[in-house]
Amino acid sequence: MELTVYLAGQIHDDWRDEVKNKAKDRELTIQFVGPQENHDRSDSVGEDILGEQPNKVLRDDAASSINNLRTQIWLGKSDIVIGLFGENYKQWNTAMDLSTAMAAGKPTILIRPVSLHHPLKELSNKATVTVETIDQALDILSYMYE
Amino acid sequence: MELTVYLAGQIHDDWRDEVKNKAKDRELTIQFVGPQENHDRSDSVGEDILGEQPNKVLRDDAASSINNLRTQIWLGKSDIVIGLFGENYKQWNTAMDLSTAMAAGKPTILIRPVSLHHPLKELSNKATVTVETIDQALDILSYMYE
Amino acid sequence: MELTVYLAGQIHDDWRDEVKNKAKDRELTIQFVGPQENHDRSDSVGEDILGEQPNKVLRDDAASSINNLRTQIWLGKSDIVIGLFGENYKQWNTAMDLSTAMAAGKPTILIRPVSLHHPLKELSNKATVTVETIDQALDILSYMYE
Amino acid sequence: MELTVYLAGQIHDDWRDEVKNKAKDRELTIQFVGPQENHDRSDSVGEDILGEQPNKVLRDDAASSINNLRTQIWLGKSDIVIGLFGENYKQWNTAMDLSTAMAAGKPTILIRPVSLHHPLKELSNKATVTVETIDQALDILSYMYE
Amino acid sequence: MELTVYLAGQIHDDWRDEVKNKAKDRELTIQFVGPQENHDRSDSVGEDILGEQPNKVLRDDAASSINNLRTQIWLGKSDIVIGLFGENYKQWNTAMDLSTAMAAGKPTILIRPVSLHHPLKELSNKATVTVETIDQALDILSYMYE
Amino acid sequence: MELTVYLAGQIHDDWRDEVKNKAKDRELTIQFVGPQENHDRSDSVGEDILGEQPNKVLRDDAASSINNLRTQIWLGKSDIVIGLFGENYKQWNTAMDLSTAMAAGKPTILIRPVSLHHPLKELSNKATVTVETIDQALDILSYMYE
Amino acid sequence: MELTVYLAGQIHDDWRDEVKNKAKDRELTIQFVGPQENHDRSDSVGEDILGEQPNKVLRDDAASSINNLRTQIWLGKSDIVIGLFGENYKQWNTAMDLSTAMAAGKPTILIRPVSLHHPLKELSNKATVTVETIDQALDILSYMYE
Amino acid sequence: MELTVYLAGQIHDDWRDEVKNKAKDRELTIQFVGPQENHDRSDSVGEDILGEQPNKVLRDDAASSINNLRTQIWLGKSDIVIGLFGENYKQWNTAMDLSTAMAAGKPTILIRPVSLHHPLKELSNKATVTVETIDQALDILSYMYE
Repeated sequence: MELTVYLAGQIHDDWRDEVKNKAKDRELTIQFVGPQENHDRSDSVGEDILGEQPNKVLRDDAASSINNLRTQIWLGKSDIVIGLFGENYKQWNTAMDLSTAMAAGKPTILIRPVSLHHPLKELSNKATVTVETIDQALDILSYMYE
Repeated sequence: MELTVYLAGQIHDDWRDEVKNKAKDRELTIQFVGPQENHDRSDSVGEDILGEQPNKVLRDDAASSINNLRTQIWLGKSDIVIGLFGENYKQWNTAMDLSTAMAAGKPTILIRPVSLHHPLKELSNKATVTVETIDQALDILSYMYE
Repeated sequence: MELTVYLAGQIHDDWRDEVKNKAKDRELTIQFVGPQENHDRSDSVGEDILGEQPNKVLRDDAASSINNLRTQIWLGKSDIVIGLFGENYKQWNTAMDLSTAMAAGKPTILIRPVSLHHPLKELSNKATVTVETIDQALDILSYMYE
Repeated sequence: MELTVYLAGQIHDDWRDEVKNKAKDRELTIQFVGPQENHDRSDSVGEDILGEQPNKVLRDDAASSINNLRTQIWLGKSDIVIGLFGENYKQWNTAMDLSTAMAAGKPTILIRPVSLHHPLKELSNKATVTVETIDQALDILSYMYE
Repeated sequence: MELTVYLAGQIHDDWRDEVKNKAKDRELTIQFVGPQENHDRSDSVGEDILGEQPNKVLRDDAASSINNLRTQIWLGKSDIVIGLFGENYKQWNTAMDLSTAMAAGKPTILIRPVSLHHPLKELSNKATVTVETIDQALDILSYMYE
Repeated sequence: MELTVYLAGQIHDDWRDEVKNKAKDRELTIQFVGPQENHDRSDSVGEDILGEQPNKVLRDDAASSINNLRTQIWLGKSDIVIGLFGENYKQWNTAMDLSTAMAAGKPTILIRPVSLHHPLKELSNKATVTVETIDQALDILSYMYE
Repeated sequence: MELTVYLAGQIHDDWRDEVKNKAKDRELTIQFVGPQENHDRSDSVGEDILGEQPNKVLRDDAASSINNLRTQIWLGKSDIVIGLFGENYKQWNTAMDLSTAMAAGKPTILIRPVSLHHPLKELSNKATVTVETIDQALDILSYMYE
Repeated sequence: MELTVYLAGQIHDDWRDEVKNKAKDRELTIQFVGPQENHDRSDSVGEDILGEQPNKVLRDDAASSINNLRTQIWLGKSDIVIGLFGENYKQWNTAMDLSTAMAAGKPTILIRPVSLHHPLKELSNKATVTVETIDQALDILSYMYE
């Protein structure tokens, strides 16, 4: 059976491509879904579609409503949610996506450098599995099919 | 009717006392619940109860399991969840608590300085109301009884 | 046992007082809850609490977020939802409140003049009972205790 | 992945064809579902199937029971619900369909002329995104696949 | 803790009084709720409140909508549902009430003469416990407090 | 889209074949599911699989556990549940199946001769649509695809 | 606020009294609920109420249906479920009670000697907290009120 | 329609192959899913992926988190859960898997030698059907398609 995996986390680099390529190398029958990965488009989509907004907060709010709609659909269709945390960015939406998945009864894999464990300890304790690297997350996905 | 309000957020200062005192001044029939507010106790409770752990990550994990149990109970019993974000700390558990409340159909009030709006935009868009100050949050609680 | 009844509908006249007084006359042990009934306050509450907004749509949006929080709490705590429709006003939030109650498994009483039946036919068909007058709604509430 | 989109709103003109044609032009893999679009058939279906009814209210009730069954099925199978409001008609069933979708955790797009914002403000605030035109709604659907 | 028990079944005799009296004799802290027990009132309540209906089927439908509202409330507030079947009457609403309780995760006690076991076998198999007499049902209620 | 329809009701005659044939004549893309239609097998399946039982009640209980498992699966996979009542048999499991479907949010069509309306009035009032004939039920199924 | 705690586990010794007494010593406002603690009564309750059964399996089945009804009620009303495992007995119902609580979103505390960790590892991993002694469980309950 | 069946139970022998082969012989369109069946891999997978752990309990906990993720996915996708108990091993995770399935509304088949009935009586009473042999479980699966 094909599994659908939502990749939650920052969109400032191409870590999702790494996940997808490594899954392809392992010949896993997995479909990956996730947020808009073009950062500029993600920030401007509210004004792109709804027109200029009165100020920055409202520009952000317009964008986030459309991004939230996207997340609601694809995260809702996923079987597993992987959330990646790194040293940079606030990443509160990553915490939100993982918590939403947990509340919906979906299994979660939390990827984070061990240096971030302390502030992530409550989220990590609620995640199904916590790992340090993308390769470990892929090991777990592979294990689903063993 | 009495309402129960969970106060999610950092435990490094006494902002919860400010909320409670101001609610008392307004004579609101509200019961406030929340996490362990003694920061040292919150961090050490795992080892305090379960004994010394092999390393820091496991010390954290032990503590967070007990803190999560506490949150699960009191947040589960609350009618409204207020989450406060500030300039300091990672605050991923605050994002987790608010998202958990949203997923459970509980109304949420997000308090944050406007300077943090951009990284909080997805969470803010999903919150029932977003405000900038504790007084505004109390204005909303008061409005429930008007 | 005391029942809690949410009164959904327009806030331009004092129909809720009529309901409450008639329930008191019948000595029904019912607690009534509902939206902010002061129309000006209901419309201005967003700006009253969150400050001046850039335009009328945003002024409305700010107010409705706080009014929705109020509805979420009190409608959520109610055992029955009564929705009253009349000839005036758009009353889309009344339709929203009744539908929200239905989706939550709460019984609903729809009060409307028979002249409005055609546009309300889908909502009426889903309501537990449809009546024409407030007195009929109270007859039903009384019947709960017979 | 194909998405299924329910189109809620009046059935007096062919706005659904406009949506479908524009989605086809954009080559979106979307299946659209919705209510009976033949207005006369929608109104008469109760008597068409169940036979003549004693009066107009019961004629309406018979029709709405069958229309509600149709909505329950197709809206239940949809991933997104788009609700269109215009200047004409009461459109309470549109408010009902959108609220039913929200309660089921489905993302919603509300299309309305800005002139209708005030009476729609509570529904708009609960919708995932509110737009003014069909093209904007299609922009959002396209964004799901970017 | 006080338990609330819904008594589902026919309303042609005073079996509910027997249950209540025997519970009182055993000093059980139980609150009993149930349908309208005055059979004539139960049948006429639709016309009593909503006015004369065009025919017998509609007279019944009006009454049942109000009786269903009553059942929805009190059965919804109950901790246990007891359903009694006897040799007389169709008792399809008793089967409906028990099934509604099962679907809501409420424990059920089915009372029936063993002679009715064959047609009740599917319902009996889904009930938490099946007994033959009111006394046995009371024995079970007593056991909750041992 | 293909719909799956569960046919609840007695298994003493071939009314399900009539439904299936008429659906085929109308070229409806519907998959019909339902209980074991061989009455003897339905009654003996418990002993057929689990071995001889100590008495008739236990023979019935063994059979009903396996029949309930079957109903749980196929009714659970269905989009619509049609329940047929006739003059013969107790048909309490038909009431149970329809109520289970209602509680699961599935639309229901109740087929019954008008002579049975009074004892079925509560169930009929909760059903999405009530009709008198199989042809009317098929008219409704056809309408889903108009 | 008072918490209700269900004590799952074997009923061959008085460990529940130890829990209750120690909670009283700590002045915790906790109400403890649980299964029938009289082992003989627990085993015979089926025959005590329903009469002699044809064989031992059916005697057990009759008892377990009534014990399950009791568990369903009190576990359903509890805020926390504590499950105790020891070296003796099969304790499959303890695993069942804890899993039922987890599935219902209730926090769980698993008490077991470390020697049993291997066969309990999946259950322990899903429990909110795992401890070795009753005193540790009470430390956690106390922490809820700090 | 194809059914998906989760096979819960010990992984020390090849009983799942027996089930699969016998289903193939009967030409049942069933997809079987289940836990990792390689016992060594199941026990070591935590350290295999996450690296060496400080002690045996933590080695177990690491493995069980990944095994639980696997179970959550495949059990979640299954239509029926079969749980097999035998004389050996603690089998608490089998009780957990069956209870999780019951709580999710999935039908369950419990296979156990009659000698184990007493300690399994509560679980057996909650299972949809209890049998003694794999062949009986297959008889039930076959019956779904009769």
